[in-house]
Amino acid sequence: MAIRALTFDVFGTVVDWRGSVIRDGERLAAGKGWNVDWAAFADAWRAGYGPAMNRVRTGALPWTKIDDLHRMILDDLLTEFGIEGLTEQEIETFNRVWHRLDPWPDAAGGLLRLKSRYVIATLSNGNVSLLANMAKYAGLPWDCILSAELARHYKPDAEAYLKAIELLSCDPSDVMMVAAHQGDLRHATQVGMKTAFVLRPFERGPDGKNDLTPDPDFDIVARDFHDLADKLGCY
Amino acid sequence: MAIRALTFDVFGTVVDWRGSVIRDGERLAAGKGWNVDWAAFADAWRAGYGPAMNRVRTGALPWTKIDDLHRMILDDLLTEFGIEGLTEQEIETFNRVWHRLDPWPDAAGGLLRLKSRYVIATLSNGNVSLLANMAKYAGLPWDCILSAELARHYKPDAEAYLKAIELLSCDPSDVMMVAAHQGDLRHATQVGMKTAFVLRPFERGPDGKNDLTPDPDFDIVARDFHDLADKLGCY
Repeated sequence: MAIRALTFDVFGTVVDWRGSVIRDGERLAAGKGWNVDWAAFADAWRAGYGPAMNRVRTGALPWTKIDDLHRMILDDLLTEFGIEGLTEQEIETFNRVWHRLDPWPDAAGGLLRLKSRYVIATLSNGNVSLLANMAKYAGLPWDCILSAELARHYKPDAEAYLKAIELLSCDPSDVMMVAAHQGDLRHATQVGMKTAFVLRPFERGPDGKNDLTPDPDFDIVARDFHDLADKLGCY
Repeated sequence: MAIRALTFDVFGTVVDWRGSVIRDGERLAAGKGWNVDWAAFADAWRAGYGPAMNRVRTGALPWTKIDDLHRMILDDLLTEFGIEGLTEQEIETFNRVWHRLDPWPDAAGGLLRLKSRYVIATLSNGNVSLLANMAKYAGLPWDCILSAELARHYKPDAEAYLKAIELLSCDPSDVMMVAAHQGDLRHATQVGMKTAFVLRPFERGPDGKNDLTPDPDFDIVARDFHDLADKLGCY
């Protein structure tokens, strides 16, 4: 398989958004006497993300960065969960928890192996500055930060994939999309990309449900990034 | 000075384009019996770059990546210098010498120091894939590859600087433009960026002329990237 570059979905595929939001929520709550279910809070924040992007994708909202979509959802959730008395700076810092997501244990090491042979880039709906800050925080050795922001079209719009391919100076079949989410990979296939499905059984928590049944059209199915590196012949 | 990110001009500021083109030209010529002045060739290639970009900036050409502008200039120079008998693959490989430029000796180490405190990004007229390949080749630890390609406006058009600032989620005054070229810095100042002038006396060769007299409006003047790291308080 003659691929030259790998593009990665990030939230859930590279980093554990749920565990990280729970952790930062608990830190924020420490000593404040609140009674908040942070796992439910994390799930609700993430659940607001698709509908918020769809408002941009359908034109109901003009182009809006994920940072700002996260903040709109957060403001609603603070009310819904009865969280009061935070300063503007505390809210803004909490909103940026999405810049401080912990990597899955295999992510940094696996990426280093893959980087020895391929160009490795993000291809996330996260905005460029979010992804650059996350890379510093989590030690992710990207060659290149690519984002739906560069196309001003959120995945799964075809424009998001096609802009990344253009910026990599590649043909679609030179590039493999890596994701833990079937829909992302199916849309990548539609523009002609190769696909690798990475199993992240705990993305939605110990009892959460992630569909781990791979589509037979995926080129590779991998347990984690080290398994992907093995399957792509990287040392 | 409260800056959050540094953006770097690349050709001449971070890497030695002239010495690298001479080196690859000599390798290409080895055993072929040509009589080519590779320093003159490198200077002519570089001299064609401004006019080629201006054809894009004025609309005489549609948006065209630097890789393709380099190739247009190269095709003319091969004729002009009487170089014949190269295969298409040899020409294309030589054209990509701009992806394999050697860093100045202080570049990788200085960038690592600066990266510990700031987001460091390219802001070059080079296309994204060129800059990503160069980073792998030269060991340049960018947080983020930004390029005029993302604005589809070449520097010194204001759009090139403003797009980078937008993608960094910064205000102009949060970002310092680092360059060995006065014009680049003056245009950065015009959009409100901070500026650091780095002296690269040998960019145009041992006898070449680079204007090393700093404009008094530049915020920092540095001998090299280590001196810049010192002046910005980085360990």
